[in-house]
Amino acid sequence: MNHHTQLFKHSTYPSTQIIMGLKKAGVLGATGSVGQRFILLLANHPEFEVHALGASSRSAGKEYQDAVAWKQTELLPELAKSVMVQECKPEGAFAECDIVFSGLDADYAGEIEKEFVEAGLVVVSNAKNYRRSPDVPLIVPIVNTEHLSVIEKKVADAKAAGSKKPGFIICISNCSTAGLVAPLKPLVDAFGPIDALSATTLQAISGAGFSPGVPGMDVLDNIIPYISGEEDKMEWETKKILGSTNAANTEFVPLSDDVMKVSAQCNRVAVTDGHTECISLRFANRPPPSLASVKKTLSEYVCEATKLGCHSAPKNTIHVLEQPDRPQPRLDRNRDNGYGVSVGRIREDPVLDFKMVVLSHNTIIGAAGAGILIAELLKAKNLI
Amino acid sequence: MNHHTQLFKHSTYPSTQIIMGLKKAGVLGATGSVGQRFILLLANHPEFEVHALGASSRSAGKEYQDAVAWKQTELLPELAKSVMVQECKPEGAFAECDIVFSGLDADYAGEIEKEFVEAGLVVVSNAKNYRRSPDVPLIVPIVNTEHLSVIEKKVADAKAAGSKKPGFIICISNCSTAGLVAPLKPLVDAFGPIDALSATTLQAISGAGFSPGVPGMDVLDNIIPYISGEEDKMEWETKKILGSTNAANTEFVPLSDDVMKVSAQCNRVAVTDGHTECISLRFANRPPPSLASVKKTLSEYVCEATKLGCHSAPKNTIHVLEQPDRPQPRLDRNRDNGYGVSVGRIREDPVLDFKMVVLSHNTIIGAAGAGILIAELLKAKNLI
Amino acid sequence: MNHHTQLFKHSTYPSTQIIMGLKKAGVLGATGSVGQRFILLLANHPEFEVHALGASSRSAGKEYQDAVAWKQTELLPELAKSVMVQECKPEGAFAECDIVFSGLDADYAGEIEKEFVEAGLVVVSNAKNYRRSPDVPLIVPIVNTEHLSVIEKKVADAKAAGSKKPGFIICISNCSTAGLVAPLKPLVDAFGPIDALSATTLQAISGAGFSPGVPGMDVLDNIIPYISGEEDKMEWETKKILGSTNAANTEFVPLSDDVMKVSAQCNRVAVTDGHTECISLRFANRPPPSLASVKKTLSEYVCEATKLGCHSAPKNTIHVLEQPDRPQPRLDRNRDNGYGVSVGRIREDPVLDFKMVVLSHNTIIGAAGAGILIAELLKAKNLI
Amino acid sequence: MNHHTQLFKHSTYPSTQIIMGLKKAGVLGATGSVGQRFILLLANHPEFEVHALGASSRSAGKEYQDAVAWKQTELLPELAKSVMVQECKPEGAFAECDIVFSGLDADYAGEIEKEFVEAGLVVVSNAKNYRRSPDVPLIVPIVNTEHLSVIEKKVADAKAAGSKKPGFIICISNCSTAGLVAPLKPLVDAFGPIDALSATTLQAISGAGFSPGVPGMDVLDNIIPYISGEEDKMEWETKKILGSTNAANTEFVPLSDDVMKVSAQCNRVAVTDGHTECISLRFANRPPPSLASVKKTLSEYVCEATKLGCHSAPKNTIHVLEQPDRPQPRLDRNRDNGYGVSVGRIREDPVLDFKMVVLSHNTIIGAAGAGILIAELLKAKNLI
Repeated sequence: MNHHTQLFKHSTYPSTQIIMGLKKAGVLGATGSVGQRFILLLANHPEFEVHALGASSRSAGKEYQDAVAWKQTELLPELAKSVMVQECKPEGAFAECDIVFSGLDADYAGEIEKEFVEAGLVVVSNAKNYRRSPDVPLIVPIVNTEHLSVIEKKVADAKAAGSKKPGFIICISNCSTAGLVAPLKPLVDAFGPIDALSATTLQAISGAGFSPGVPGMDVLDNIIPYISGEEDKMEWETKKILGSTNAANTEFVPLSDDVMKVSAQCNRVAVTDGHTECISLRFANRPPPSLASVKKTLSEYVCEATKLGCHSAPKNTIHVLEQPDRPQPRLDRNRDNGYGVSVGRIREDPVLDFKMVVLSHNTIIGAAGAGILIAELLKAKNLI
Repeated sequence: MNHHTQLFKHSTYPSTQIIMGLKKAGVLGATGSVGQRFILLLANHPEFEVHALGASSRSAGKEYQDAVAWKQTELLPELAKSVMVQECKPEGAFAECDIVFSGLDADYAGEIEKEFVEAGLVVVSNAKNYRRSPDVPLIVPIVNTEHLSVIEKKVADAKAAGSKKPGFIICISNCSTAGLVAPLKPLVDAFGPIDALSATTLQAISGAGFSPGVPGMDVLDNIIPYISGEEDKMEWETKKILGSTNAANTEFVPLSDDVMKVSAQCNRVAVTDGHTECISLRFANRPPPSLASVKKTLSEYVCEATKLGCHSAPKNTIHVLEQPDRPQPRLDRNRDNGYGVSVGRIREDPVLDFKMVVLSHNTIIGAAGAGILIAELLKAKNLI
Repeated sequence: MNHHTQLFKHSTYPSTQIIMGLKKAGVLGATGSVGQRFILLLANHPEFEVHALGASSRSAGKEYQDAVAWKQTELLPELAKSVMVQECKPEGAFAECDIVFSGLDADYAGEIEKEFVEAGLVVVSNAKNYRRSPDVPLIVPIVNTEHLSVIEKKVADAKAAGSKKPGFIICISNCSTAGLVAPLKPLVDAFGPIDALSATTLQAISGAGFSPGVPGMDVLDNIIPYISGEEDKMEWETKKILGSTNAANTEFVPLSDDVMKVSAQCNRVAVTDGHTECISLRFANRPPPSLASVKKTLSEYVCEATKLGCHSAPKNTIHVLEQPDRPQPRLDRNRDNGYGVSVGRIREDPVLDFKMVVLSHNTIIGAAGAGILIAELLKAKNLI
Repeated sequence: MNHHTQLFKHSTYPSTQIIMGLKKAGVLGATGSVGQRFILLLANHPEFEVHALGASSRSAGKEYQDAVAWKQTELLPELAKSVMVQECKPEGAFAECDIVFSGLDADYAGEIEKEFVEAGLVVVSNAKNYRRSPDVPLIVPIVNTEHLSVIEKKVADAKAAGSKKPGFIICISNCSTAGLVAPLKPLVDAFGPIDALSATTLQAISGAGFSPGVPGMDVLDNIIPYISGEEDKMEWETKKILGSTNAANTEFVPLSDDVMKVSAQCNRVAVTDGHTECISLRFANRPPPSLASVKKTLSEYVCEATKLGCHSAPKNTIHVLEQPDRPQPRLDRNRDNGYGVSVGRIREDPVLDFKMVVLSHNTIIGAAGAGILIAELLKAKNLI
């Protein structure tokens, strides 16, 4: 298959624009579960092309198709098959990348991503290592794109100082955090702070990877009411994502526990893709908004990525469902190709103010897909 | 197989006592899912024997083995096979019963159970119809057996008045309510009222019966975030079960919304048996008890049925688990033959006071099994 | 959304050609599981447009969106939402249809489809009623398109006689038959008759519909080793599909049991979509072909629909997989949008000659999708 | 809990006999999946008691409850909790054992089991290492107990020679083989050789252990049509189990391929416990027996273990089911505590002679349970 033909097929972009605009993308941890998804999402992308693939020294030097145990529902893209896998060093093809997506395990991400940034590269990482660093944006691309201002400032400062464009890293949030904050953001924007939030998750197994991931005996006819570290991540990340930047616009200031209390209970369930979250929340302002205004606010929310016309941005950021038994992961996880979030059963809560069910696609808006949309935002904002 | 031999097999009771004490039991809705379970639980019971089986007119007149589509993991008990199914009228064999268990659908339960009670029979019902009647006890037999005092008074009054022993009905709670209130009761007894309670359930499909029950396409690779009427039942029943009786000891007084706010979010998941509930709660009294004292109180709780030596009563009413990833339905649902409740992950909650995971067997302590244990309590209290 | 814009979006056809060529399509049983899939597949089709939707009198007179309990993973297409549902009579909008797809239950299909054909309409039916009629083609559109010659003759005869174009019906095969015959056809063409065939199926639940379809308790942690009527269908239909037409080209002559013995064992398993079949077969000719030539024949097979450039025809009719653990339904069922069949583990068989694993998408090539591809073939052959 | 009380509870044996007869049992690989099941099955056994537990050096020196990640549906037996784990050497407590059950991985079993036998111990092993050794019995305890004659001779010879009692090893068959041969044995005994056998399996995941065992993503909404080495094991082991001993009664002579052709196709499915096998078979003798006589032969089969009154022997070795949709793993796997095999859908086969569905419990009669019953047979035959 011809490269350009393939790109045109799913695109409405005029061809010349596409060819001129192709940014070079690298993928760290390319043989893993998240890496494979980055490659799939890049395969027919109108703005990016796979340029460098990095994996362990065991895979380095092999063609990608020989190095990977491909386990996706779509076939390994032709374009990636014969890309030579290299080690995860900011050298060779990686040095030429406009953007590098990291699907590395936390055990390796810390050091490797640091090296890449120090070499002046732009890294969008799915690893947890730098999410809590005060100067690193933790971005859910349908939620807190205003946090990219810290990067904009850093790049502008470097330009003003005549330095070369600096490397930087942007972290993708934890998968369960992404779904949670999607409805929170427009509500906070419209009605002021949420001071209490309880979330119980029913999480799909795909997020845990596949070698081995969640054992079959753990999910078949079963629930695992625990995911190591997950509740803490949800509670902490939510407060950073809904938080602000400091006055100098150089660091992030998470909401304090006084402003917002968050409680998460995380469960692993027998679902392949799609995290379901039963949440309840209370607004700080009294009286709280009406049920109708909450629904209207969620329905009308348009994220910045959509406004900027980003390729992968959802048409509807939040799908408000009125059927009593929705959203359901099997039926609703692929709304807007997994970039839209579905919210249903919005109703008053006897304990807090409102409760609702939130569904998000854990490997799209909750992981690799978020990385791609972040990259589209960076391009739209001329940061790559 | 000989009847008595069978009884001895699983029993430590001296034989004469057993034979003398066998109470005659009837089962209404005998061919349905709940009815089948009543029959299984009665099959080797040391105190009861199946005496009458009732079903629709379509089944009446057939031997039970010909009328039923038996779908249990244990074989149809020999003793029940050739029992002649009759219509659900308080006549014939039913009129001779010491106790009648009802697994009727709500569509039929209202009228039929009324007829049975009016005929002077004792009915233990799994149907929802009379749960909210002010003078009907709604009993979780490991929780609120003190509510049987209303029946004791009614029977004593009749005796004092020289009337014949009155019929009465006792309702089994909704399956998800049973698991919820099990840990609440000892906590309220020890630390005073719980003023706020949030519960998100992950409910097994067996409770929905099997013809057709929950469709396979609804649970495979999926979650249904809705069970018709379930949330309202949990919220309402909890307040009756934890409530009190009136001064005359003739009616029940549920907790008011001012005293206790309850919020439930109910989900159907791909689990055959065992309801998992992620709950969080706040005590009215400040400061709240310590985490250690909460755990200790739960561990040490011994329900009255156990104290009375009831045959099916759990050895441990509540199993407090310290492993981070327990309870799990596949592994823990059969504790104490499904009569024990498992509670794990007890920890402080940033929004309310404590959160924990509760697991209970929905068809045992949450349905038919509860009925059997209620009957054992009635016998122990000389009410049948 | 504008109708034509939508069509252009996924199409490489020049616009004028599309608009001119749009054939009017009706769907019988439009609210059912198969009917919903017909509508989805027609939604963005470059050659057909939804023109009439038929359902029971209970739905007739309502807009489709109000009549249907939509349970697909894609949203109800905009174009179908406000189509007025009518009764299943060959009148009104149905009378104007170039083609009518039937997703009717067998209980109704017999009479209704007959009426439609007698009214001169062309029906492509998923129902089993007429599959065994000697003059009705039973078509797997990637397998036995030469059987359409009987229709070509009928239409040509009518034309020659100056009669008006006759109505006719074409039957879609049973879902499990479709997967089975796909690899058999090229093998028989290349190596002569298969005289013995054993097939054990592991069938998905989506084929059983969803109201209620297969009960959850039947598939969760379970296998149902029986599907009513299925084994007989597979055994019989295979012999008709691989059979020939009579000399007059007016009727079909199934293979006799002497020529081909077929044995099927059918199981329902916990898979949403995709039938897996473990088959073994023996050729009549001795010595049998080599393993390599069997694989080569399957790999190189190109069905007529693909040669004719039909819109939905698979790029690869049969995907021969060499990995030891493939095909797998979750990973491989969507090859060529569900129109391609995957065959793996092709190896010699100690009892017959060869064994292999065949995977096909039961609701695409095994049901509604087959109907759409048959319609494309009819158009390509100027039969509609 | 007192040791003896516990034993009495589930037993009809007079107490003195039990206490006198308790044989000392060791378990190799005690912390693994198979090892845990050996311990469970030994916990209340009237003839054996856990005496030695062996695991890797990492676990040695710890109490069993601290060394094991217990993942069974029943609680860790009290009696095993504080047993000190030792290394897998034929020393210490192991040297005192009357019998040693091995749940070792094949990587370790070869050497360790050899050492134990050479030290004069009796080993019953679930590992595959010695199954094909000509002088090692490969025993399915409800099938080919006559193969123990080789051991009887060996022991008798040693006694005659005045040597000390020799160590020996007996291998448990592969789990899928056990179910397969159960119905074959009585058929061959009654009707002569089966010359062709095809079996397609749908195998549960519990047999693959749990760390990690089968990944959740591999079984959820999926089938894996491959289990490494499994088909070869089934094909080979069947011929040894149905084979004979040599004239000297010192070695086993498997059936040759000329006598019996066996073809297996193995699939992993989303079932926790219970292997379902769709089999078809042809007898060498013509004409074949009638369908009725096949069913009768299976129904009436009583295995030697049952005749000898072995504690775990099934009451019905083979349960012949007449319902069209049985056996089903969730409903039928626990017949006779997992020691009975269920056979349903027995019918004529168009390709071979008969086909049927066989269900067996893979961790009971297909693994650890078989080991326990073999030990009971050894005791009954005075071989331990």
